[in-house]
This record gives sequence, structure tokens and C-alpha cells, in this order.
Amino acid sequence: MELGLIGLGKMGGNMRERIRRAGHTVIGYDRNPDVADVHSLKELVDSLQGPRVVWVMVPAGAATQSTIDELGELLSPGDLVIDGGNSRWTDDEKHADQLAGKGIGFVDCGVSGGVWGLANGYALMYGGKAEDIAKAQPIFDALKPEGDSGAVHAGRVGAGHFAKMVHNGIEYAMMQAYAEGWELLEAVDSVTDVREVFRSWKSGTVIRSWLLDLAVDALDKDEHLHGLRGYADDSGEGRWTVEAAIDNAVPLPAITASLFARFASRQDDSPQMKMIAALRNEFGGHAVTAAE
Amino acid sequence: MELGLIGLGKMGGNMRERIRRAGHTVIGYDRNPDVADVHSLKELVDSLQGPRVVWVMVPAGAATQSTIDELGELLSPGDLVIDGGNSRWTDDEKHADQLAGKGIGFVDCGVSGGVWGLANGYALMYGGKAEDIAKAQPIFDALKPEGDSGAVHAGRVGAGHFAKMVHNGIEYAMMQAYAEGWELLEAVDSVTDVREVFRSWKSGTVIRSWLLDLAVDALDKDEHLHGLRGYADDSGEGRWTVEAAIDNAVPLPAITASLFARFASRQDDSPQMKMIAALRNEFGGHAVTAAE
Amino acid sequence: MELGLIGLGKMGGNMRERIRRAGHTVIGYDRNPDVADVHSLKELVDSLQGPRVVWVMVPAGAATQSTIDELGELLSPGDLVIDGGNSRWTDDEKHADQLAGKGIGFVDCGVSGGVWGLANGYALMYGGKAEDIAKAQPIFDALKPEGDSGAVHAGRVGAGHFAKMVHNGIEYAMMQAYAEGWELLEAVDSVTDVREVFRSWKSGTVIRSWLLDLAVDALDKDEHLHGLRGYADDSGEGRWTVEAAIDNAVPLPAITASLFARFASRQDDSPQMKMIAALRNEFGGHAVTAAE
Amino acid sequence: MELGLIGLGKMGGNMRERIRRAGHTVIGYDRNPDVADVHSLKELVDSLQGPRVVWVMVPAGAATQSTIDELGELLSPGDLVIDGGNSRWTDDEKHADQLAGKGIGFVDCGVSGGVWGLANGYALMYGGKAEDIAKAQPIFDALKPEGDSGAVHAGRVGAGHFAKMVHNGIEYAMMQAYAEGWELLEAVDSVTDVREVFRSWKSGTVIRSWLLDLAVDALDKDEHLHGLRGYADDSGEGRWTVEAAIDNAVPLPAITASLFARFASRQDDSPQMKMIAALRNEFGGHAVTAAE
Repeated sequence: MELGLIGLGKMGGNMRERIRRAGHTVIGYDRNPDVADVHSLKELVDSLQGPRVVWVMVPAGAATQSTIDELGELLSPGDLVIDGGNSRWTDDEKHADQLAGKGIGFVDCGVSGGVWGLANGYALMYGGKAEDIAKAQPIFDALKPEGDSGAVHAGRVGAGHFAKMVHNGIEYAMMQAYAEGWELLEAVDSVTDVREVFRSWKSGTVIRSWLLDLAVDALDKDEHLHGLRGYADDSGEGRWTVEAAIDNAVPLPAITASLFARFASRQDDSPQMKMIAALRNEFGGHAVTAAE
Repeated sequence: MELGLIGLGKMGGNMRERIRRAGHTVIGYDRNPDVADVHSLKELVDSLQGPRVVWVMVPAGAATQSTIDELGELLSPGDLVIDGGNSRWTDDEKHADQLAGKGIGFVDCGVSGGVWGLANGYALMYGGKAEDIAKAQPIFDALKPEGDSGAVHAGRVGAGHFAKMVHNGIEYAMMQAYAEGWELLEAVDSVTDVREVFRSWKSGTVIRSWLLDLAVDALDKDEHLHGLRGYADDSGEGRWTVEAAIDNAVPLPAITASLFARFASRQDDSPQMKMIAALRNEFGGHAVTAAE
Repeated sequence: MELGLIGLGKMGGNMRERIRRAGHTVIGYDRNPDVADVHSLKELVDSLQGPRVVWVMVPAGAATQSTIDELGELLSPGDLVIDGGNSRWTDDEKHADQLAGKGIGFVDCGVSGGVWGLANGYALMYGGKAEDIAKAQPIFDALKPEGDSGAVHAGRVGAGHFAKMVHNGIEYAMMQAYAEGWELLEAVDSVTDVREVFRSWKSGTVIRSWLLDLAVDALDKDEHLHGLRGYADDSGEGRWTVEAAIDNAVPLPAITASLFARFASRQDDSPQMKMIAALRNEFGGHAVTAAE
Repeated sequence: MELGLIGLGKMGGNMRERIRRAGHTVIGYDRNPDVADVHSLKELVDSLQGPRVVWVMVPAGAATQSTIDELGELLSPGDLVIDGGNSRWTDDEKHADQLAGKGIGFVDCGVSGGVWGLANGYALMYGGKAEDIAKAQPIFDALKPEGDSGAVHAGRVGAGHFAKMVHNGIEYAMMQAYAEGWELLEAVDSVTDVREVFRSWKSGTVIRSWLLDLAVDALDKDEHLHGLRGYADDSGEGRWTVEAAIDNAVPLPAITASLFARFASRQDDSPQMKMIAALRNEFGGHAVTAAE
């Protein structure tokens, strides 16, 4: 089938390639003319035969909003927009309503796969009406990994991004789990080969996983990670997961601890621990350490 | 080679079978005569040719201690004891010293594998002197899974149990990660098929793992886990992980949160939340709920 | 001076009384005619001489919004609206802008005091322009406790509710601190008189506080809190505190743990712990407990 | 009455002074001859009339153990030893048993008061037999603050140190509560006067406390705590509190989070966050920050 793809960055570019390898036609647009097949959204839309399917793969927030606004003007009733970016699930219903007013369908799709997706396939979680999803099914089939799993119709509009967001929240806590264990093993004298302990866990253990494999890969490059700073960004989806939990009164202690550990990792000095130090000094005369 | 194996419960019985399948001779002793090959520790020791290798697979604590005490009386210089149970790493050095006084070697070995070990192999983490480990290497090779990983000489005496303990701590937090994500997905209306979301994650995602596969198996049996109570025991190793972290001033927020969630799961009513309710009533006149 | 007061519930009614005791004129409106001085917002506004000061003390959200909408129609340029309810700080700027378009001033004011405020005074945290705050200063002075502290101009519009929200977040964690300590003391045999331990802490300790005094009052009524369920609501401000922390990448582990403990206290059974139980059964054959 | 006091450091020296001001005789021993009244434990014991009461106020662990060992040799049946140091509660029963074998009584006493105790009195929590506590009651009365509270017979031997330990655990979480709130207030632009917000909370709020007063004192010296590093030691009792919670399967999320925040504050770089950074790079190609 024919797909319009907007956004050809690290993710979008590889996705175009994987879809083409499956035999489909992809017309890609990007603000960067070096990678784009067409030079404007209008040209993209004009070059597709109706009913059109257009996949939006641009940064969440303003860029996605303006793309959807513009597509609302350019597309025709019966066409379909898929938001495959990292939009917050709460935006999806707004986008669906906005486009529904013009007879245009909408599907949200969370995509996991990172730099490995081109070769291994992209895990897809999508939300929307069954008839809209049916229109895009060949593309989903091209993108997903081989085998029975790797793609799911998670529910109504918004469910795709919600499921992907929760995936990332789980990812935060799994990474934190390995990281805590690694630090503890490194902290004791008796364990002399932490990297090989991690490698041994790849078979037969309860905690074997793809993330564990990656941890071993990282340790093979730098056994004690001496070359790295303990500094971790967060991409928004961990934050949204905690916010969704608060909205639903669901306790998420491990995921939230993992998010907070990232926040703390980015502080040169901890304001709250300054207050702890100040209080200890006030009541107990405990020594404080001067700021440099 | 020839091995004496003490303790033929759920784990030990299957381990005997797996070692025998690899062509070794195993003489097993258990207090339960129905499963035992010999009827006393003395008979076990007498039936092995020196230098002997004896694997202890009994409950941690008093049972392990009394077995090691007895073996110290029965074995000869040059023999080797392997503690493959779930002993706390701090016991290992004591046991090693106790046996070293009699010229008997000691290796501690953490074993992971549960009900899957017979078929798939047992992941092994062992600690001790290289020469002692060499004596048991054929047994380790028989027990471990196929392939390059699944067994490690983690370090000095105690390092095996320490590594296994940290494995379990990581396991706690990974399970908690999936469990938190599952509860959040179940809590929202838009996601209509949580089980299939979990299944989809088995391929192409960052969070694919053996534990995820098991989660899908569990959901296939009982889609919303309606048949279960949210009640989880803990086996000791999660507690020891947190204690080891405290000893080493290593922060373990996610693993500890996972342990505490289990503690809370076993309380019919939360004493601390009674105090919260009482305080809210005192300062704000907020309604309280009477105990039933 | 003269004040219009909208909302005469548990808080508003007592505040009217305290302001009157200080010699000011308060005209109160409430939907409940039994407590109201006037029968409509219009009558309230008409009965005040300009420039008017009107204090809104109604539930946050829709009730506050519709009151401010209506006041925007009824009031005149130069008048002032104070929102003393529990509005989210993000609403304040919207309300200020809405009223500024009509020449009406706006101040937000967080109020703490609960059932104790009438006698002891209400702690006030307000945000807005200095000239607007000056108009209401006699009312603030009447409401606040005796002495040097108890009221603050915290900053710009929104700062009052933000400061009050953080106050409540701190309150959550302080209550949790005492509650955790109480549960631990109750759990051990050696401490035979936990209530008296709490009472002893009222003097000379680092942890003496008004909340501690209230805890002792509660234990004097019910030594082991046997009459209460461990069930705690949350009023929204704890949630907003965590959301504000996420917006600002500030780690709040203790406050968030306190919020999550309340969420968990309201669950009859924990979905996430069902998943933990299910996973333990899958990999280890551990017994599960059937739901009743 | 007459008291032997061993250990005349920051705490012990001031306690000697407070007891003397109450009209009692105190003979103090310290390894530092500049502050000691006698030059050996033997001289101390010889200078007291039987039945003697000896208060040990030396560092927990080896120093306390060796003092108790020596007193066991020097004292006579019917004498009483009080351990007023920061011993772990698990040591108390051992010490009591050790001395009971010689007919010597034992009371453990947790002491709170820090640099403020001389003027305001020391909060005391003691454990032991009623008849032993009666022997020391005049000393407890001299040390404690004025008024009805400030001292408690908490229970059996060990209960005093246990109660003091829990006091410190609560203290950790209360300090953390204020510190988190302070950091959040400092993080937002709208709140322009965080110090005055804190000061305002001293009256009429739910969170007023002595620790809050100290926080204001600290902010009066250094409004944004720019002069301090966010580095906080821990004295052992927070760790023991968490260990006691683990022993008793009591969840302590806020207290434990507070302890872990201190651990993290002392790390120049976080090993676990290096692992997080490494994993993000492996699966997503996310940029990492090189160590300096």
C-alpha cells in the first residue's frame, strides 16, 4: 500500500526503510530537504491517492499539533492520520475530535524499538476504531517484529500512547533494578567480578532479559563504567506515567523512585540535602560541609 | 564424578536428576527416607570415595548449620563442602573458617532456577578458592544451562550467595515494575485489552524478558487475576539485600519499595494508616472509618 | 473594614466569626440560607460599598470558577477578589487574568487552620500585587494567629496557593513519619507502652511538634487505635505537590511515599500484588492465596 | 544522690552539669584527664558508696562494650549500670545478661537533647526493671525537661534504646519532609520569599514544630543555604530503624527514603546512574555524559 510519512529523523528514517523493504510505497516528508522525498506537506498529500494514510512521526507537543492542524486542512474525508510520535495520551482524544469534525480518521500508535527497530522490528501499540486500524494494518505488519507478538490494538483512541507510556515507566524501574543491583555488587569486596556475574545471569535466571543483555554489552565496553557520569535524562513518558498514576490513585513506588533518581542525578548539589545538613547543625551541632 | 547431595526437596531432588543425566554418580541423603539413597549423613560420607565433594541443599539457618557441624565431624582433610542453599552470605565465612580448621574446603553457591531448572538448567553463582571450585567444576557444568552463560565464579567465599541475593533483589524490583504497570493499565478505561498489551511486549520492546513471558502465562490462565489475593510472601533474600545496602550505604529505592509493598500486602489493616486517619481527624475533623 | 465572604461552611463560617470578633463588618453569602446573611451574590455585591473586597471560600474547581465568573459580571473596576479556597495554583493566574480584563484585582490565599482556626487563628499564605494585598491587610490581620508569624506575602499570584500546597505536602510526610514510627513501636514486644513513649516526646526531643501533640490526643482516646480502619483520603494538594515536583524535576521521595501509602490504604486488595503473587507462582511454584 | 558518669564529651559533660545543678553529686570519668574528676574506672567505682549507680555515656559499640566488661569486674552485686549512649537495642539484652550474672542491674536509656539539653533538659526513654529504674529516678528527674513529658519508662531492657532509635527515624523523615518542601518552593519563580513562607508556618499551621523553628533559624543565617554542601551524614540509628522494620515486616517508606537520600548525598557520582546512562545509550543511542 501507499503511506505518507512525516518526520524522517532517527526513528522515522529507519521506519521508512523497513516499510519499503516490506514492499510498500512510502512518500516521506521532513523539514530537512536532504532526507525528504517531497518538499511540503501539501506536496505529500497531493502525491498520495485517496483514501490516504499519513503517519506523523514528529516531536510530541507543538510540532505534532501544528502538523495535525495542517493535515486537517489538506486531507479529505475518509483519509486517516496515525500519530506515531511520543504524544501524551491526553492529546490523542483532542486530535481525534479535531479531525473527526472533517471526516478524517485518527489512530494513535506508540512505537518502541530505538536504534534496533530497523533490523528487529518495532513494537507497536495502537488505539482507535477497528475500521481505522484495518486501513493501516499492512503498515503495522511491515513495522512489527516477526512472530506472534510485537503489536497490539490496545483499545480506544489514546490507548496506544497510554500503553507505550506505561511500557516506558516499567522500563525505568527495570533499569533502576539492574542499576541498584550493580552498584551494590560493585560496593563489596568479596565479589571480585561483577561483570561476569551479570553475564552469568543471561541464562537460567529469573532476571534474564534484553535489558540485561544490554547491560553486559555496556560492561564489556567499560567494565566499571568509569567513562560515564551518573547523569540520566528523562523523556517525559516516565513523568506522565506517574501523573497518570496520581490521576487514578494507583501507587507506583518503584517507578516513581526510578524517575526521582534521574532527577537527582542531574543536580550538581542537592538543595534538599543542604536543608538536612543545616538542620543537623542547628539541633546537634553536627559539622557541615561548606559549598566549594 | 561422585557427589554427595544432602537435601532432596523440590530443588535438591531435581538437581540430583539433572546431575545424573550428565553421567555423574549422586548419592543423595534426605530426612525423608522415601527419597533418600542412604539413611544417614554418616552412611553418605562412608559411601563416597575421598577426596569427597558434598553438596548441602537444606534450608538456610539452623538446618544448614547443623549439617555443616555434622559434616565437620564426618569428613576428612581434603574433602569439600558446597553450600547450595539460600544461606545469608555472612554465614559463609563462618562456615569456611569452621571447616578450614579441619582441612576441609568450602564453596558457597547461589542457585537460581526454581521449577524450571531440571529442564533448562540452574544458574549458578559460586564463591571460594579457585582450587576448591575446580574440584566441583564437573557438577557445576552439569547443573548450569547450555551455552556460555549461566554460571560464574563471583569471588571469594560468600560472593556466590551475595550475588544470588542481589539477583533476588533485582527480581523483586522487576516484578514490581511489571506489577505497577499492569495495575495502571487495568485502572484506565481506554485500554481495553491489557493482557494483549502485555503479550505484545514480548517482541521488539525494551522490556521483554522471561518474567514478562511468565506474566503473560499467568494472564492467559486468569485474565484479570480475579482468582488471586494480592498477598506476597518474601523469602529473606530481599530483606538481606536491603540490609547489605544499608551496611554499604548504597541507596536502593526501587528494590526497597518492592520489599515494603510485600510487607504491606500481608497486613489485613495498616497500623500506620490508622495513625494517619487519626491525625486527620484530630486537626481537620476529617471523617474516619470505623474498624469492622 | 467591610468584607463580602462567599462560602460559609466549616471553614468559612468560623472565619466570618473571627473577622467579626476583630471588629470588621462581614456580609456572608452561602447557598444554604440558614447560614447566609444575604440571598444572592448580587445582593452581596450590592450591599458592599466600593471599592469592594470579596473573599471566595468555596470548593476548588467548578464551584470556584463559577463564583469568579459571576463576580466578574457583578463587581466594578477597583474591586478585589480573594480566593481563599483550595484552588490549584495553576488556576490562579487564569482567574487573575480574567478579572484583570475588567479592572478587578485578584489575590490567592492559602489558609491553614482547620477546626482550630477560630480560636487560634488561621495561617495565611497569599500571592498577588502589593497594592491588592494592602487592601485586604486588615482582614489578613484579623484572621492570622497572634504574634509575628502565621501570615506571609509569598510572591506573585499563585504563590499563596503554591505555598499552602507545599505545606500540605510536608504535612503528609510528617504524618507518615509519626505513623511509621508508631507502627514499628507497636510491632515489638519490648516496648510495652507506646502511647507513653509518644507522650514523652512532647518535651526535649527533636521531633516535638503540634502534630505529635495531636497524636497523643488520639492515643489518649484509643490507645491502640483499634476503633479505626487504616484508611486515609487525600484532598488533592498532596497530588498537586507531586505533580509540581515532576514539572520542576525535584525529587520528593518521602512526600510521594506518603501519598502512595494513602492510595494503597483505600484498596480492598492490591492489583499489583496479585501480579506479584502470580509471578512468584509461575517461576517458583510458590503458593498463592485465593481471593475470597 | 551520688552518680558515677563515664564519658564527658559534648553530651556527657553537659549532663554532668545539669545533674549537679539539681543538687546531686556526680563523679565523672573520661579518658581525657582535662575534664575528668577521677583518673580510672577503678577510682570512679572506689569513690562511690554502694549500692552504686554508674551512667555510661561513651560511643556505641566497642567503647561501650569494653566499659561494661570492665564495670562487670569492678562493681558489686546490687549496683546498677545505665547505658545512656547510642547503643543498638540488640546489645542491651546481652549487656543486661552479662551483668545479671554478677548481680548487677542494667537499664538502657536513650537520650535526646543535643546541644540544647543543658538548658532545656534531655528527653529520656529508658528500659528495664521497675526496681532498677527506681534507683536512678532522681537522676532521670534531674536530666529531663520541666513538665509532665520528656521521660518515659518505655518497657523492658532494650526498649529505651529502641524508642530513641525510632525517634531518630521519625526525625529523619520529618527533616526530609521540610527539606523536600523547601527545595520545591525554591524551584518555582512565583514564590519570591521562601524564607518568609517558612517563618509564617511557625504559627497556626499543621506543620509547626521545633524542627521548623530551627529551619527558620538556619535560613536567617543563610537565606538560600548557598554556603552549605548538600551532604548529610547518618549516625546509625536511621539504619537500625530500617533494619528493625525489616525484622518486623513493617513498611517504612518515608523513613527509608530519607535514609537513602543521605546515602546518595555523600556520593560524588552515582554508580547506579552510570548504569542507567549506559543502558539508555545501548537501547536508544541516547547521549551520555563523560566522566570528568
